[in-house]
Amino acid sequence: MSDTLQRLEATIAARRCADPDASYVAKLHKRGLSKIAQKLGEEGVETVIAALAGDRQELVGEAADLLFHLLILLGAKDVLLKEVLAELDRREGTSGIAEKASRKTD
Amino acid sequence: MSDTLQRLEATIAARRCADPDASYVAKLHKRGLSKIAQKLGEEGVETVIAALAGDRQELVGEAADLLFHLLILLGAKDVLLKEVLAELDRREGTSGIAEKASRKTD
Amino acid sequence: MSDTLQRLEATIAARRCADPDASYVAKLHKRGLSKIAQKLGEEGVETVIAALAGDRQELVGEAADLLFHLLILLGAKDVLLKEVLAELDRREGTSGIAEKASRKTD
Amino acid sequence: MSDTLQRLEATIAARRCADPDASYVAKLHKRGLSKIAQKLGEEGVETVIAALAGDRQELVGEAADLLFHLLILLGAKDVLLKEVLAELDRREGTSGIAEKASRKTD
Repeated sequence: MSDTLQRLEATIAARRCADPDASYVAKLHKRGLSKIAQKLGEEGVETVIAALAGDRQELVGEAADLLFHLLILLGAKDVLLKEVLAELDRREGTSGIAEKASRKTD
Repeated sequence: MSDTLQRLEATIAARRCADPDASYVAKLHKRGLSKIAQKLGEEGVETVIAALAGDRQELVGEAADLLFHLLILLGAKDVLLKEVLAELDRREGTSGIAEKASRKTD
Repeated sequence: MSDTLQRLEATIAARRCADPDASYVAKLHKRGLSKIAQKLGEEGVETVIAALAGDRQELVGEAADLLFHLLILLGAKDVLLKEVLAELDRREGTSGIAEKASRKTD
Repeated sequence: MSDTLQRLEATIAARRCADPDASYVAKLHKRGLSKIAQKLGEEGVETVIAALAGDRQELVGEAADLLFHLLILLGAKDVLLKEVLAELDRREGTSGIAEKASRKTD
């Protein structure tokens, strides 16, 4: 389970150059970065709505969609998931919640 | 590295009932689900903008923020990350990219 | 020209109970408030992307979409455009930009 | 009332080059197009949340915020509100709701 995102990242990388008619990932890539970013933004909106107005399973599904499209977007910009996780580790390790606590919430 | 999200999820769960003046997570929880959802939506927008107009490091930072706030939102709805990962595994396992390929991209 | 939004608001109100197969507004209403809100959020994302990565005409088109879906959402909640314009007048009239200036920009 | 948006557009244009310490509009402009677009996206998210989880007055306030920041964004790209209204008129005039009806709702 803990390797789900890494495996998904690899799958996405492999599909990027597939036939756009056969692969959703390839189709999105063919449409370009703006369209990939748009999908990520839309999944963010849908996750918000599922949290406020949907049931548990809808939130699970939208969060999965959000993670999936985040991995596609990162891949499109040649950013690895492990770089993002390292950033989370860095925040947690050095200043931890203290860093977060200093942020404003608005 | 691969356990970063699980550890972060546990940290968030532990902080939820902390002093809101000392913990960002507790402060967000005190402000309620709508505010937590709002933050998730805003991080989605910021990730879109970083991908289109920012540099690599900005995208790494915004993706980290997005994951962090997604975990807070899931926690606020008592949804576990592993449920979301299981959903991703299920999609990959059963119908895989085929399921995705059948989706429209608009 | 200046009555475009008022006329559009009236058209939307008239279409709300039309045949969902013949009217986009009726179809959205039939799908419910969450779907209408989702469309508004998506148009917000698309407007962001058009501003950052699109040309002039794309921004004009997305801004038009955003206004159109805002009017549908307001109508679905029985809020009149003139109430929103009155709120803008009120801000401008009483405290004006000073009120805005006191807001944080983050 | 019907001229509220036109007057607000003129006010925003006038404030664009004001002292950023005295004007919210000038401050946003100084921070650049990405920040202005971010604010528009955030107001879209807040409008979604107000519609789903807020009361009438919150929706009025968020819709006003959304319109205000849309005008700032359009101004930053040298797009006039009347161009957007003309686009809405064009859609209504030529193909009307029929054009909309042909769109998918997902």
